[in-house]
Amino acid sequence: MTKARVFVTLKPGVLDPQGKAVAGGLETLGYQGIKDVRVGKLIEITFEDGTNQERLREQIDDMCARLLANPVIEEYAFELISEAEAAEPAANGSEEDS
Amino acid sequence: MTKARVFVTLKPGVLDPQGKAVAGGLETLGYQGIKDVRVGKLIEITFEDGTNQERLREQIDDMCARLLANPVIEEYAFELISEAEAAEPAANGSEEDS
Repeated sequence: MTKARVFVTLKPGVLDPQGKAVAGGLETLGYQGIKDVRVGKLIEITFEDGTNQERLREQIDDMCARLLANPVIEEYAFELISEAEAAEPAANGSEEDS
Repeated sequence: MTKARVFVTLKPGVLDPQGKAVAGGLETLGYQGIKDVRVGKLIEITFEDGTNQERLREQIDDMCARLLANPVIEEYAFELISEAEAAEPAANGSEEDS
């Protein structure tokens, strides 16, 4: 099972009212030190077995450009997750360092 | 500058009409081999300098539980991005392996 995680975010400079609302909400709850909040989309696509990885990358790039992102105001990035990782569900509240 | 990327996804089993619509759209465009599509949120929070990393992790976990995710139907994960990485904007269509 191959899984792709597509990240679609607004381009820098594009107004993000949803992000502003979240920032306002966090401040109202008492959190300090927040400079900016931007809200984007995370699209997880699970593919059937037996698809060539290189072919898949091209296909996903094409999907992003044609349907998943609006290239005028959004930018995208994606990562392919291997079988083992895809099988492991992300724990609630788990942390990942990068 | 510290940046946090929060991933909010629907729990497995929770119906995702938006994901179904995206899957249908991709199939209409002629893409094959798609098993499932789930749509979640990607929330990028930029923090002001000088916040302790450990403290920040606790704070973000708290933010997720209280505002960013609905713990009944959603699960969350987050990662902290270091200054250097945060300064580098993600290129349009860039690929990341994991």
